[in-house]
Amino acid sequence: MLAILNMEVSRESEARGEAGNCGTASPLKKQDYTFSSSLSLEQIRKKQNQFSMERDWEQYHTPRNLLLALVGEVGELSEIFQWKGEVDVGLPGWSHKDRAHVGEELSDILIYLIELAEKCHIDLPSAVLRKFELNFKKYPPEKVYGSSKKYTEYISDDN
Amino acid sequence: MLAILNMEVSRESEARGEAGNCGTASPLKKQDYTFSSSLSLEQIRKKQNQFSMERDWEQYHTPRNLLLALVGEVGELSEIFQWKGEVDVGLPGWSHKDRAHVGEELSDILIYLIELAEKCHIDLPSAVLRKFELNFKKYPPEKVYGSSKKYTEYISDDN
Amino acid sequence: MLAILNMEVSRESEARGEAGNCGTASPLKKQDYTFSSSLSLEQIRKKQNQFSMERDWEQYHTPRNLLLALVGEVGELSEIFQWKGEVDVGLPGWSHKDRAHVGEELSDILIYLIELAEKCHIDLPSAVLRKFELNFKKYPPEKVYGSSKKYTEYISDDN
Amino acid sequence: MLAILNMEVSRESEARGEAGNCGTASPLKKQDYTFSSSLSLEQIRKKQNQFSMERDWEQYHTPRNLLLALVGEVGELSEIFQWKGEVDVGLPGWSHKDRAHVGEELSDILIYLIELAEKCHIDLPSAVLRKFELNFKKYPPEKVYGSSKKYTEYISDDN
Repeated sequence: MLAILNMEVSRESEARGEAGNCGTASPLKKQDYTFSSSLSLEQIRKKQNQFSMERDWEQYHTPRNLLLALVGEVGELSEIFQWKGEVDVGLPGWSHKDRAHVGEELSDILIYLIELAEKCHIDLPSAVLRKFELNFKKYPPEKVYGSSKKYTEYISDDN
Repeated sequence: MLAILNMEVSRESEARGEAGNCGTASPLKKQDYTFSSSLSLEQIRKKQNQFSMERDWEQYHTPRNLLLALVGEVGELSEIFQWKGEVDVGLPGWSHKDRAHVGEELSDILIYLIELAEKCHIDLPSAVLRKFELNFKKYPPEKVYGSSKKYTEYISDDN
Repeated sequence: MLAILNMEVSRESEARGEAGNCGTASPLKKQDYTFSSSLSLEQIRKKQNQFSMERDWEQYHTPRNLLLALVGEVGELSEIFQWKGEVDVGLPGWSHKDRAHVGEELSDILIYLIELAEKCHIDLPSAVLRKFELNFKKYPPEKVYGSSKKYTEYISDDN
Repeated sequence: MLAILNMEVSRESEARGEAGNCGTASPLKKQDYTFSSSLSLEQIRKKQNQFSMERDWEQYHTPRNLLLALVGEVGELSEIFQWKGEVDVGLPGWSHKDRAHVGEELSDILIYLIELAEKCHIDLPSAVLRKFELNFKKYPPEKVYGSSKKYTEYISDDN
């Protein structure tokens, strides 16, 4: 089943005109799923800002209001997954409607998250890059490679 | 205080070499806060993918595991805001430490959100653009402009 | 306004036949709001268990399914509060409809929380009493009294 | 494994001096897990109220502050489950430490939920009983029995 899944992903990647490296992929190596465009955080921020301004809704978009709106959207995403039991990578067997619904809720979360960063005056692109630097240093591959135990211990040390 | 806040934002924008339009801004018009770079969703996806691969952690990154990790990070973000009461745009008066903490938690949410989209095989950039189209149509400015009542009614109709 | 609020609470308490101690309350001391019955966690657990059994829905109620359902309900509760800005104790000025809605969502969270404990085989009443013991010891009044700073420091040490 | 699990639950019930009906249980009928005491919502509310009063922390316990604290605790609970994949009823194979941790986070959520109801002046016991009435009517067993499809459709109609 994984092999079939990989092939499907490859076909999707090809359909989007992406080169991929499926020719050399080992049978156990899952084909990377890639996004089709280079949409930036700043482009999303600008679009949402325009949307709110045109409706005079900026007045409601305080940090805590947006945070609760974000929590609301995470709840809606969870409701799609709540009675499904464990779900494999790629959501195999899910209806087109359910998949579209997941895309909408992920988008809502992303939009509120980006606007929340804006309203907190947090430069989200810089913050993400800095966080990656921290994570890459904090979890050296040679110490945590492949071990779920080490992984969760590291994570829990972190919290 | 708002005026000072605006000036600070303007100075931040200037420091980042952005032109801005502060010269013409009316006293009541809040200066737009902009992100400093054009980091894309795909660049973040790729970085996180590399991070997981190098540690052999992909095996733990199923959709529902990532969804719960996302919920965990939203919880950590909420904890920063939980005892603060209402907070103004720009987080005036917050310590550098608290602001950095907000940046880290927003980043964690963003990273897991993007990886969750990847693992669901949802093309997040396309999904966001489609969601904006829906929102722009669904809430026509002439019908919802500036009215909190109309706004919340529209939102609740939606849910 | 606080005084009026207190009086209203007192009247509510009286209407429920509760003695209260309003006669001796200082003007600054907020009247305690009390629940009207002694409904127990076990009674709620039993009712929900009966509900699921009669519908043969136990099969869907695994720990992680219930956890995601809980997250969904917390999201729905957040949506009621999301555009309201800061809200005073007692939800003054809220419509009957909004208040009833809050009651429903709080109930949904409580029901799923209790069923989640059941499905994890956690004896929730014992766990709560033990947690109170820990909290009472951990935050000695003489060290944390009335200080928001000490409070948040203590809380963050805890996480 | 289920049989063993059932026996363990029965033994736990016996240890708590509960009669149980294990003698007559069919092999497929899962033994009911019961809470060991009749701790009430009002008792928990009173304890938490005393806790806050003694520390003069009531001032921080506004509805939205408590709501965000609740979201924070739900996040901490999710973190325990996030990398575990699907988990069976009873958390078989979990360490004593992890189980105790689940008990603590469930308790924290319950405590904040009950205090949130208090601060919203929502009579939670009444609200829960009313919600059960609604649910029992809304999902008649003969229409929804055992069908995941009907179940989720009903649930989604509801939202």
